Amino acid sequence: MTKPDIDALDAADPLAGFRERFDIPTGLIYLDGNSLGCLPRATKARVADVVAREWGEDLIRSWNKNYWINAPRRIGAKIAGLIGAHPDEVVVGDTTSINVFKCLSAAIQLNSGRSVLLSEIGNFPTDAYMMEGLAAIAPDRFESRLVPTEEIVATLDDSIAVLLLTHTNYRSGRLHDMAAITEAAHAKGIPVIWDLSHSCGAMPVSLNACNADFAIGCGYKYLNGGPGAPAFIFVARRHQEKVFPALSGWLGHKSPFDFTDDYQPATGIDRFQCGTPGILGCAALEVGVDLISEADMTDIRRKSTALGDLFITLVEQKCGEYGFRLACPRDAADRGSQVSFHHPEGYAIMQALIERNVIGDFRAPDILRFGFAPLYNRFDDVRRAVEILADIMATKSWNQDRFKQRAAVT
Amino acid sequence: MTKPDIDALDAADPLAGFRERFDIPTGLIYLDGNSLGCLPRATKARVADVVAREWGEDLIRSWNKNYWINAPRRIGAKIAGLIGAHPDEVVVGDTTSINVFKCLSAAIQLNSGRSVLLSEIGNFPTDAYMMEGLAAIAPDRFESRLVPTEEIVATLDDSIAVLLLTHTNYRSGRLHDMAAITEAAHAKGIPVIWDLSHSCGAMPVSLNACNADFAIGCGYKYLNGGPGAPAFIFVARRHQEKVFPALSGWLGHKSPFDFTDDYQPATGIDRFQCGTPGILGCAALEVGVDLISEADMTDIRRKSTALGDLFITLVEQKCGEYGFRLACPRDAADRGSQVSFHHPEGYAIMQALIERNVIGDFRAPDILRFGFAPLYNRFDDVRRAVEILADIMATKSWNQDRFKQRAAVT
Repeated sequence: MTKPDIDALDAADPLAGFRERFDIPTGLIYLDGNSLGCLPRATKARVADVVAREWGEDLIRSWNKNYWINAPRRIGAKIAGLIGAHPDEVVVGDTTSINVFKCLSAAIQLNSGRSVLLSEIGNFPTDAYMMEGLAAIAPDRFESRLVPTEEIVATLDDSIAVLLLTHTNYRSGRLHDMAAITEAAHAKGIPVIWDLSHSCGAMPVSLNACNADFAIGCGYKYLNGGPGAPAFIFVARRHQEKVFPALSGWLGHKSPFDFTDDYQPATGIDRFQCGTPGILGCAALEVGVDLISEADMTDIRRKSTALGDLFITLVEQKCGEYGFRLACPRDAADRGSQVSFHHPEGYAIMQALIERNVIGDFRAPDILRFGFAPLYNRFDDVRRAVEILADIMATKSWNQDRFKQRAAVT
Repeated sequence: MTKPDIDALDAADPLAGFRERFDIPTGLIYLDGNSLGCLPRATKARVADVVAREWGEDLIRSWNKNYWINAPRRIGAKIAGLIGAHPDEVVVGDTTSINVFKCLSAAIQLNSGRSVLLSEIGNFPTDAYMMEGLAAIAPDRFESRLVPTEEIVATLDDSIAVLLLTHTNYRSGRLHDMAAITEAAHAKGIPVIWDLSHSCGAMPVSLNACNADFAIGCGYKYLNGGPGAPAFIFVARRHQEKVFPALSGWLGHKSPFDFTDDYQPATGIDRFQCGTPGILGCAALEVGVDLISEADMTDIRRKSTALGDLFITLVEQKCGEYGFRLACPRDAADRGSQVSFHHPEGYAIMQALIERNVIGDFRAPDILRFGFAPLYNRFDDVRRAVEILADIMATKSWNQDRFKQRAAVT
């Protein structure tokens, strides 16, 4: 692949026009949109308006006048369109971790008598951690269990109350087969919770086509909702009325403004709301969701896999001698919108890249992770990133003390 | 009290200078700071900087470079200074409802074998609702129970796992005696959770002097943190290491960036963090907390009670014939920073007031609630509010259809 070949890919990219809808710092090659997505240009004005006018001028009246009260459902309905769900199956609010807890505590009610909360070793930690926390509330009733990925299906039996999996693994980028695993679990009467944090906005997701039960996802990665953006929860219509929310906050009540002493869950997905939503976070998230909703998810997936394939090809061509070992599936069909490599000096190499304005992530113990956000990453970003990586390796410039000091967050 | 008398009160007010630090819409008399506090002027620039520079330019690097990762503890430590807590006993994040759940699920671990989660009838609904949700996870283990206020102390026995009370009642404004109730509960081995939503920022609170166990509070009322601002949780040092968090999210792990499969709680208050904090919400909250931290809490309380006393006096003088009945303690020592009246036409009267630019709250079934935020409310606001109320009552202008149509949020 020559520079003209790569420029031709960018020139032919149907998503190329989206890049100018974002503020991308000049000279930065940002391959970390799967950790924190870039800032949509429209977000600045929208958040400023929410602060100065909606909060500052309209104050408490904004809950009605500026539709704050509807924000969790309104944004949820838009996200539903990205993940193959009905508009009344998704609501925004709280964090991914909290929404995992909502799903787990709901799913166990569908299977009373069963005790095991099942996930896989190497899942994103918060998913497994939330299982532990729920199990600890009633340790004689519930057990949290992690098994190796290849043993998941064989483990499914009638002791399993719920299966919790992340669709795209945060470290390896490996994709689970949502339809097949959901079907296998259902055959044993097990509902499945899909964590879409690294999938939503990066590829078509078809929750209802897969007969999914529950899902959750993150607002600040491919949805570009801003740091710590509210998360979302999906609950299939058929389950919504069957469960009593464990996190039964007042906004999940059927009549929150009656201020009754007893909790009566709202109809449908509304019962999975809990406390008062963070309106600044919702406002920024909505801009990101609106922006990605303008794109065709098939185009996003096609570009995503092409960016990843190009990255692998170029790293193997230009850095083949430096000890990188592919940590993600080579076949793009099995991979999310990221490429990962093992390298024993991964941490220092990533720091050296960051100093050269190429931002990816390091994930312990030895993984360099590069995310591709098709709305703003270009094929030429991939070319330049690998060129800089090759230079860092050729000059051994990663091998300096300042790159080896680990900061609190990497 | 004549207009010159009231002007003299404003002239002598040591907090008068704070009003210009807020954006208050011209002509608005805002007596609803206990629902959503006003916008501090500095918030606009701060939020804009977080969006454009910290997110837009520094992107993922901001977790370290701009100290996002420290925000929950940093802001928590500042709030600790407002509520009589140590800096390492408070952390910001999630909603009030979620923090209630964190406290409940922690407190029950201090008393294994006990089954009753106790609160009072008429507490803010989400507190009672969260008890119901927790109890529903293990209904054979836990029971949620509400008793009349006057029966709380008599109910305390060794079946009670935890007592959850709101310090200032949201509807009546009645204050609980935190020290006395905590002592009575401790005598029976019962930890107490204090909901400070309507107290924090409105009066001195002395959690450690009262030997408090747990507390939670709201960021968007007297702390002026913005709509749906993050809430906070207080856990006394002596309890922090004794409990395993039920909401065991990754940021409560002792080494979140090691991404281990098993949850090991962080030392101290950090284990009560859960998911990724909403940074926009934190930024706005911090401005509000910084601003109120400049004021003397004794001045705030003194002005708060004077505003309330004046309001009661003037309503009884000028509206005595219109059927208002005091719904809060007359003695300011027993009252939070609000005054409430019953009136059978309370809803319509509040709507008429709002149309005349006097904003309070209606709380079902028949309560008009007026909150006093000493940082920006003036004695003259009280005078004008009552003047307008008297005019609405004299002209019966509340008695129109448009004031009787209830909106979704009131």
